Amino acid sequence: MPKTAKRNAFYAQSGGVTAVINASACGVIETARKHRDRIGKVYAGRNGIIGALTEDLIDTGKESKADIAALRHTPSGAFGSCRYKLKGLDQNRAEYERLIEVFAAHDIGYFFYNGGGDSADTCLKISQLGRNLGYPIQAIHVPKTVDNDLPITDNCPGFGSVAKYIATSTREASFDVASMAKTSTKVFVLEVMGRHAGWIAAAGGLASSDDTPLPVLILFPEVTFDRAKFLARVDAMVAKHGFCSIVVSEGVRGPDGKFLSDQGLRDAFGHAQLGGVAPVIANLVKAELGHKFHWAVADYLQRAARHLASKTDVEQAYAVGKAAVEMALKGRNSVMPAITRTSDSPYRWKITEAPLAKVANREKMMPRSFITRDGFGITPKCRAYLEPLIRGEDYPPFRNGLPRYVTLKNVGVKRKLSTTFNV
Amino acid sequence: MPKTAKRNAFYAQSGGVTAVINASACGVIETARKHRDRIGKVYAGRNGIIGALTEDLIDTGKESKADIAALRHTPSGAFGSCRYKLKGLDQNRAEYERLIEVFAAHDIGYFFYNGGGDSADTCLKISQLGRNLGYPIQAIHVPKTVDNDLPITDNCPGFGSVAKYIATSTREASFDVASMAKTSTKVFVLEVMGRHAGWIAAAGGLASSDDTPLPVLILFPEVTFDRAKFLARVDAMVAKHGFCSIVVSEGVRGPDGKFLSDQGLRDAFGHAQLGGVAPVIANLVKAELGHKFHWAVADYLQRAARHLASKTDVEQAYAVGKAAVEMALKGRNSVMPAITRTSDSPYRWKITEAPLAKVANREKMMPRSFITRDGFGITPKCRAYLEPLIRGEDYPPFRNGLPRYVTLKNVGVKRKLSTTFNV
Repeated sequence: MPKTAKRNAFYAQSGGVTAVINASACGVIETARKHRDRIGKVYAGRNGIIGALTEDLIDTGKESKADIAALRHTPSGAFGSCRYKLKGLDQNRAEYERLIEVFAAHDIGYFFYNGGGDSADTCLKISQLGRNLGYPIQAIHVPKTVDNDLPITDNCPGFGSVAKYIATSTREASFDVASMAKTSTKVFVLEVMGRHAGWIAAAGGLASSDDTPLPVLILFPEVTFDRAKFLARVDAMVAKHGFCSIVVSEGVRGPDGKFLSDQGLRDAFGHAQLGGVAPVIANLVKAELGHKFHWAVADYLQRAARHLASKTDVEQAYAVGKAAVEMALKGRNSVMPAITRTSDSPYRWKITEAPLAKVANREKMMPRSFITRDGFGITPKCRAYLEPLIRGEDYPPFRNGLPRYVTLKNVGVKRKLSTTFNV
Repeated sequence: MPKTAKRNAFYAQSGGVTAVINASACGVIETARKHRDRIGKVYAGRNGIIGALTEDLIDTGKESKADIAALRHTPSGAFGSCRYKLKGLDQNRAEYERLIEVFAAHDIGYFFYNGGGDSADTCLKISQLGRNLGYPIQAIHVPKTVDNDLPITDNCPGFGSVAKYIATSTREASFDVASMAKTSTKVFVLEVMGRHAGWIAAAGGLASSDDTPLPVLILFPEVTFDRAKFLARVDAMVAKHGFCSIVVSEGVRGPDGKFLSDQGLRDAFGHAQLGGVAPVIANLVKAELGHKFHWAVADYLQRAARHLASKTDVEQAYAVGKAAVEMALKGRNSVMPAITRTSDSPYRWKITEAPLAKVANREKMMPRSFITRDGFGITPKCRAYLEPLIRGEDYPPFRNGLPRYVTLKNVGVKRKLSTTFNV
């Protein structure tokens, strides 16, 4: 048991970062600072859970109020993230014993882990340290993933901003190709993230709306690529509209189950070419239909684009950070603040509590009812789901023409242990 | 000679479109509408000069004041553009005779052509129709090109917004990779436009500034790719900072003079793979240095990104459109409104008049003094040139989370000729 009711907190960022994960960090830290009677220091893990394992902690108390507030409009992971999954207690007991050693040395009683499905699993394991190893800790997961694939929560912070970016970019590029189509480019291909679930690709469908109809075709990872059907559809769209845009998920697979992007190419240097799927699709269209094309791969630009963040997304990212601390203060353990939609129109949401055991290691795929029967578009039901998530603008401050993002001081906490740990 | 002092105008968009070419159209049309005593109709060419050759004219008078005003915040070419270069009078006299036939039929006495270097050449030829073929016309070129390679004018409308997009995206992605570098991605590669001149690539250098220093390396088309030197530099940056970002121009060539992107690849469908240079660079880094990478190809996204337009760029694009009409009203022919910088700090500019003969077919490359001695960065002189061009934000209106761009009615003008013309 803790010496006093006041204990320190640990916060870490995990997995791929987003445009708004720092808004969650802001929510955690600002809320904790309002409860100094219960929460002492907020230590952040430098590079995620690795910071805990190596006793490389950051004292967020050294950051000014203004800099913590600026996290709300700064993309990326301000404390560093990592791709590192704890094994089960049976497989690597040493890791858990090390975590307890570090947590105990710094009197850490609250564990906030900001990540996706894998991270929820890590957080679940931490939440069991009290029961399994006798160390009292409350572990709360703070949801984050551009993939939007966590269960229970209506959507995941990070996704709404990517969706807004992809929808906007698809609309803008479609206007461009429409201008060029008479004598030049007729087909534009945009590759987007989402190796397993097609949520981000679906957002491309929002580019076309009642007031701005555009020919947009989507290739989902959930739908096996059908070459002939695809080409026929592109041909028809170009015949009707003079051009079309294709939004393709990086995770699209052919009938052989292999990624379309996995072409076994070698470049002139003799290196395996880990190419994108966009050029594969573009070249197919050119070779079979003869249309001039352009293609883009958004990659990190889509998830880092804080300049075009969804206001809804920013608010929700902050809210789950804030709620995580409030749940901790209520004595909760092994839970995650979830976003619950209470109304589509007008859009309303609230934060509810989800048991971590029901979140960890479960992927929420696109429901089949969100994809049109032909497999190339989104249904009205999908649109009703997606639209509120991209609503509102929340521009960062600009200086000299560029967004002004904060870089924290990230002052290390003095080590208390003489032992080290190799990760 | 015209029957009366009041004659009609022709306006057309040419070549690759930009985020602000419609702002120039807005400047032309709004200014012409203020001078109805001198300029009757403003006809736009549907798909550029092809609209003139085929007598496919759009009556911009059918568009509402609000829709014309909305052009200012709408990317792409609202009337359609084309890639079509008129041959010389000696090589294709029929084209010029056809233009005169169409212009005469619609009493067109003003010709406004909105494009880059090739288009300036077309405009120059049109401006000589009076002297060479006896048809009285005033031809004014309206500068536009993301490549920023027109001479005389300090910069080209369209470029500032691309520069802002590339600088912002490079900054955002650099923050992202910095977060991931400990256990995952250490090198991010962004491919940008600019096959001959490195202006757009140079803008990537703005991502790093005194208040936000970032390790950014630039590969210019003006600098022959030196594999060993490049790898050594990346290695040093990653060793020092833990990560780096590389902004690579699509036009980078190796010592053999060939584009690095031209790898002679074939994909699984057996098609020649017209890949980008970004994956080539990324794979090289991985193979030689072992760093995990991510890469993006911005392609159309960069030139269509009106959501992130530079306010300076929008104002200049409008100003050259407005000035073109004013020059026409002053009886000028064969000229182009140019942007002249009168002060760096504070940044000041004005519109001056450039003779078309000195604009057409001349490319303005990056001065060597704008590129650092090692060939991988921009100098303070370059920074002083670029910075004002990306200043200011000019957000479009949003509806339901998406920018609201206008699609014009584009009502065709009744044909007066019984003849047709094949382009």
